[in-house]
Amino acid sequence: MVGGGKDAFIGAVHRIAALMDGEIEIVCGAFSSNPEKSKLSGEMLHLDADRVYGSYGEMILKEKSLPEGEAMDFVSIVTPNHLHFAPSKMALENGFHVVLDKPMTFDLQEAKELKKVVETSGKLFCLTHTYTGYPMIKEARQLVANGVLGKIRKIYVAYPQGWLSEFLEGGDNKQASWRTDPGKSGIAGCMGDIGTHAFNMAEYVSGLQVTKLCADLNIVVEGRQLDDDGSVLLKFNNGASGLLYASQVAAGEENNIRISIYGEKGGLEWKQEDANTLLLKWLNKPTEILRAGNSYLSSYAQHNSRTPPGHPEGYLEAFANLYRNFAFSVRAQAEGNTAKAEWLDFPGVDDGIRGMAFIQNVVKSSKSNEKWTEFVV
Amino acid sequence: MVGGGKDAFIGAVHRIAALMDGEIEIVCGAFSSNPEKSKLSGEMLHLDADRVYGSYGEMILKEKSLPEGEAMDFVSIVTPNHLHFAPSKMALENGFHVVLDKPMTFDLQEAKELKKVVETSGKLFCLTHTYTGYPMIKEARQLVANGVLGKIRKIYVAYPQGWLSEFLEGGDNKQASWRTDPGKSGIAGCMGDIGTHAFNMAEYVSGLQVTKLCADLNIVVEGRQLDDDGSVLLKFNNGASGLLYASQVAAGEENNIRISIYGEKGGLEWKQEDANTLLLKWLNKPTEILRAGNSYLSSYAQHNSRTPPGHPEGYLEAFANLYRNFAFSVRAQAEGNTAKAEWLDFPGVDDGIRGMAFIQNVVKSSKSNEKWTEFVV
Amino acid sequence: MVGGGKDAFIGAVHRIAALMDGEIEIVCGAFSSNPEKSKLSGEMLHLDADRVYGSYGEMILKEKSLPEGEAMDFVSIVTPNHLHFAPSKMALENGFHVVLDKPMTFDLQEAKELKKVVETSGKLFCLTHTYTGYPMIKEARQLVANGVLGKIRKIYVAYPQGWLSEFLEGGDNKQASWRTDPGKSGIAGCMGDIGTHAFNMAEYVSGLQVTKLCADLNIVVEGRQLDDDGSVLLKFNNGASGLLYASQVAAGEENNIRISIYGEKGGLEWKQEDANTLLLKWLNKPTEILRAGNSYLSSYAQHNSRTPPGHPEGYLEAFANLYRNFAFSVRAQAEGNTAKAEWLDFPGVDDGIRGMAFIQNVVKSSKSNEKWTEFVV
Amino acid sequence: MVGGGKDAFIGAVHRIAALMDGEIEIVCGAFSSNPEKSKLSGEMLHLDADRVYGSYGEMILKEKSLPEGEAMDFVSIVTPNHLHFAPSKMALENGFHVVLDKPMTFDLQEAKELKKVVETSGKLFCLTHTYTGYPMIKEARQLVANGVLGKIRKIYVAYPQGWLSEFLEGGDNKQASWRTDPGKSGIAGCMGDIGTHAFNMAEYVSGLQVTKLCADLNIVVEGRQLDDDGSVLLKFNNGASGLLYASQVAAGEENNIRISIYGEKGGLEWKQEDANTLLLKWLNKPTEILRAGNSYLSSYAQHNSRTPPGHPEGYLEAFANLYRNFAFSVRAQAEGNTAKAEWLDFPGVDDGIRGMAFIQNVVKSSKSNEKWTEFVV
Repeated sequence: MVGGGKDAFIGAVHRIAALMDGEIEIVCGAFSSNPEKSKLSGEMLHLDADRVYGSYGEMILKEKSLPEGEAMDFVSIVTPNHLHFAPSKMALENGFHVVLDKPMTFDLQEAKELKKVVETSGKLFCLTHTYTGYPMIKEARQLVANGVLGKIRKIYVAYPQGWLSEFLEGGDNKQASWRTDPGKSGIAGCMGDIGTHAFNMAEYVSGLQVTKLCADLNIVVEGRQLDDDGSVLLKFNNGASGLLYASQVAAGEENNIRISIYGEKGGLEWKQEDANTLLLKWLNKPTEILRAGNSYLSSYAQHNSRTPPGHPEGYLEAFANLYRNFAFSVRAQAEGNTAKAEWLDFPGVDDGIRGMAFIQNVVKSSKSNEKWTEFVV
Repeated sequence: MVGGGKDAFIGAVHRIAALMDGEIEIVCGAFSSNPEKSKLSGEMLHLDADRVYGSYGEMILKEKSLPEGEAMDFVSIVTPNHLHFAPSKMALENGFHVVLDKPMTFDLQEAKELKKVVETSGKLFCLTHTYTGYPMIKEARQLVANGVLGKIRKIYVAYPQGWLSEFLEGGDNKQASWRTDPGKSGIAGCMGDIGTHAFNMAEYVSGLQVTKLCADLNIVVEGRQLDDDGSVLLKFNNGASGLLYASQVAAGEENNIRISIYGEKGGLEWKQEDANTLLLKWLNKPTEILRAGNSYLSSYAQHNSRTPPGHPEGYLEAFANLYRNFAFSVRAQAEGNTAKAEWLDFPGVDDGIRGMAFIQNVVKSSKSNEKWTEFVV
Repeated sequence: MVGGGKDAFIGAVHRIAALMDGEIEIVCGAFSSNPEKSKLSGEMLHLDADRVYGSYGEMILKEKSLPEGEAMDFVSIVTPNHLHFAPSKMALENGFHVVLDKPMTFDLQEAKELKKVVETSGKLFCLTHTYTGYPMIKEARQLVANGVLGKIRKIYVAYPQGWLSEFLEGGDNKQASWRTDPGKSGIAGCMGDIGTHAFNMAEYVSGLQVTKLCADLNIVVEGRQLDDDGSVLLKFNNGASGLLYASQVAAGEENNIRISIYGEKGGLEWKQEDANTLLLKWLNKPTEILRAGNSYLSSYAQHNSRTPPGHPEGYLEAFANLYRNFAFSVRAQAEGNTAKAEWLDFPGVDDGIRGMAFIQNVVKSSKSNEKWTEFVV
Repeated sequence: MVGGGKDAFIGAVHRIAALMDGEIEIVCGAFSSNPEKSKLSGEMLHLDADRVYGSYGEMILKEKSLPEGEAMDFVSIVTPNHLHFAPSKMALENGFHVVLDKPMTFDLQEAKELKKVVETSGKLFCLTHTYTGYPMIKEARQLVANGVLGKIRKIYVAYPQGWLSEFLEGGDNKQASWRTDPGKSGIAGCMGDIGTHAFNMAEYVSGLQVTKLCADLNIVVEGRQLDDDGSVLLKFNNGASGLLYASQVAAGEENNIRISIYGEKGGLEWKQEDANTLLLKWLNKPTEILRAGNSYLSSYAQHNSRTPPGHPEGYLEAFANLYRNFAFSVRAQAEGNTAKAEWLDFPGVDDGIRGMAFIQNVVKSSKSNEKWTEFVV
């Protein structure tokens, strides 16, 4: 693991997600650019001291030199955005599969380069767009893919948060500080941090691609350097239109990412707040409540849940689904087996490129007086 | 009553709303341009045959000639949009107060003229933007007005319906036919029919005014002549931004108009589906569930409900609130008394003008390549 | 109307319910035992002064003497429980149909006598168990009757309120005072006031009858004279078991009467808080959300709603359904026509007798050391 | 781990719960009475072959002989009910802490003996009443303990399931077979399996104890040997009354265990279906929605969640809370430190005894003609 030392929020989440299913063991780490901090994090995780490294470079080289079966199989990179590209590239080039936190890179240019590295390496690559790991999001995607809703006409996706309603940056709040700092986050704030999740969910569930957009990004809190709020009109490649909004100043909101999609025959609705439920709406018959864990669901939804219906699974299980599917795929590759389609259904380098392109296009559109901006990759 | 004969959906709704509180009696009507139909409607309503008229013109003149106390006090006009202006004008000019179905007129020009007529007449005028009649919408407005949320930053309003997902016009479906006919509805379809409700709700609850907008209107169903779907980015006069969407092709949706508003200190959320509930969200304390009928609510919310908490009131009561408040105001004027502020809190001619301007501006923006269109009245 | 003068909660509700559909006009009343109060109430209602009477006896006799077509057609009796029997009997015996507030009488003996009076009179009689007037409760009854759930196995019904959590009686709170006074309410408090509604709903929706029960009634608030809380185990005549609980000390609850019924094939769930929704649950497929106003519902549900799906109807419309169905039935009888089954579907004298028997049996059981008490009528 | 081999539902759940937080490693197991099956389970879990044992007896003795720091620290026992007592006793007597699946033993007699063994051993013992591991259940208990609701008056707890609506036993359904077999489950079916969870939750959250009860247990599905449904009236040691129902024939229900508690000042409501929410209801002010992960919650609720508000945690995290708290307590004991109160807040041997007493008393009451049965331990 690179980054994610003590007190790092997302590092702890990655570890729970990785460990939960007993398929993955944490064997080494370079948890901080500060060697002392890295060491303390390793102790907290009960790791061998000699596999807690002072830098990712050291880790990759030393692990590479270990005998097969002993070295790490893949590396998780959970650093801030500006430190995504270099360790990913080095890991891939030295023969390690990579799990990388989103957004993929600091800018689109890096993203395109990383894609080439992944392809050359032949290694597996997973980008942790967690929200597509929910079983009912898998089900939604299958329903659309199978034509259950007919041709898709309308896509609404939203991600409201309220935690940046006040000016928190610059002080103790490490999360607020790096996420609002253009030097660490890149050219977008809210849109990069959570807008990309919403964008990825819209494309993942619908199976469509955005072709043009019209964005209104705002800096609501005085003194902030990056957008903390935005709305985006969307056009998709099948002619459907859509709407994406994300905000970090929606005071009182927690993390209620949600999506509604409408087609000729019906619609569907999902929200993280009630993650085990998917509503399926029809023109002239009752709405149906699809629930995780039931035998009437697709193989994709069933594969991605662990408990019988009615025992809620949540965000950590959605995250764990990414890791478990990645681990199954890594093992299949190692053993020369064919990975199941359900295992390979995790976000990858193309999602990452489109996410970075979303950031670039949305920022460009926001500054433009033209209504529509082409979605350029 | 002008229009709203047998089988007219909105006419029946107006009558229930008018009668419910025992403050209003239906005494006469010109229910249809077809005298035979008008007569049958009058019979259905147990009216005196000699007060069922063949045209609104006849009705207004005959009623005017009746002795005071016997003639109607006010007239309800519930015809399609293109027949709003003329009867309203004539009624006002002949001394009758008017209740008029929305949108106010066929176009903005008529709306402005009607405003002059209302002002000259000194008569009361109510435009039936029903959804602002809900007690919890009254409460929401009071909370914002009293600064409970701090400065408003963000307004989301939506009105999804699915009933026009298929091409229904031209056949038996009278509702579908006139609402999609530019000759009867005007230049907008979905935006005129339900977008105006959403727009009115946003301005009513926030107390703010839209200053510019960016619209994406769509004709989704092949062969349709007017927009059946649209999304609009909004800017308000205090600097807040917003988002309005309305659709009649959101398959499986009923009439779930809803609004969320966020300020510096907190947010609020209301949806028609759960009309007796208003959520009040806070930055660092639990969300509160405000419920209709409780003594902790403002005088506005309390005045506009009839039953103790927990006995749901609905759409018809919201509509009846407009009529009851209008009736109280009419009586106060007749008796030379001052109407209470709670009574006068019904939508009027200025709401109507802004609604017609919304239609005009939104259609203009939709056709424009410029991102922002000034909201011109 | 007998009783229900100014400030009487339930009288005002009856009037809204009666007037809403334009089928009923209030023509006379004896609104209070105090003639002065009765007169003021009549003025408030814009009635002719000579049809506002000082007593129900005077009203019945005078109205009887009026020419046909001018006299009242039926009388609504909305007095406290101890004043139900006498005016009902007198009205029926003098040729007037009767609408009576529940519970039907002061005790079971009166109830049985009233049944004889109704049968002898040939007049129509409606007992206002309001909650069975909701369209989705009608739908629930039809689903069970049509065997959709298979043989019924389990019935849960609950009516929690919190308004009597403190000792309110004896002071200004007229509602609290008479409802907790054995001289006015009879032998039961909470069970008579709201337990009977829950009992009626269980039997109405299931089409079954209770055969024995086991009750635990409590006086929770110190100094109170009647039960303010209770739970009852039930056995039904098809072998199903059930559970009824009602409380007026469930602090923070409003009026959330609700019911769940399970059969061999599936279950249903309804709650007043979300009255336009009925959940239909299945063994091995998704739960369905049935919603009022839709064309997929039974004729009973459709007949008892007024607006398109998504416009919520509430308690007052449920109440109005009783009055409208009663009025249609009265008119059919007057005109010598056959009333439709949907019209005659209002609670009557047999419901009243079973309700009074419920009160008697539940109080008997509560005092008994035996587990089961036969349900004796 | 004893029991819980391949295909065992609850064994897999225990493992996820144990592993999730990186505090526990599975080092050995006797996963099945069939040595071949046990071996295969060990391979699936990537265990050393020489620590996969053919019987729990062998495991306990061999592990005991290993050097400190290498032997297991505690044992998880996840066998059917009739195989709880013996391995627990042996493990404790040989110096191992124990985590045991509920209900604690086959009968009350065994439970009492086990308590003595635990006390003599000085070892830690955790009984996996999972549902009390939810952070909002922790919060509920704290609110009651701190007097926020005033004196408790009423407790409703329910656990409806539908999965045994048909006769599934005897065939392939291993879960259905042992749970309905008196030889493996003991004297109760539904009440032992899920009624005990509801009972434990009622006593845990309220801090009260049941003193007498009145039960109606039913065998609804023909041919079944144990109760599959039941309702129980309760009396608590502070004078409060309550109601518990549990059913496995509530067709269409998943696992919606829920609880409502009312006191003098307010009430609370929680349901597993929406596990991250706790409603707090008040007499005269708005209901509050308390949500997991927020800083306004007690230290107990905060300690038992892992993610920021709005990222749902579920059943597996609730289960993991038991394991994590147990592991922290085990480590504290091993290191001679004082365990925090939050760590020691897991269900123990006294909960187990009361659970077994509940089963015995509820079965006794169900057969009795007396209304009330004393709760004898």
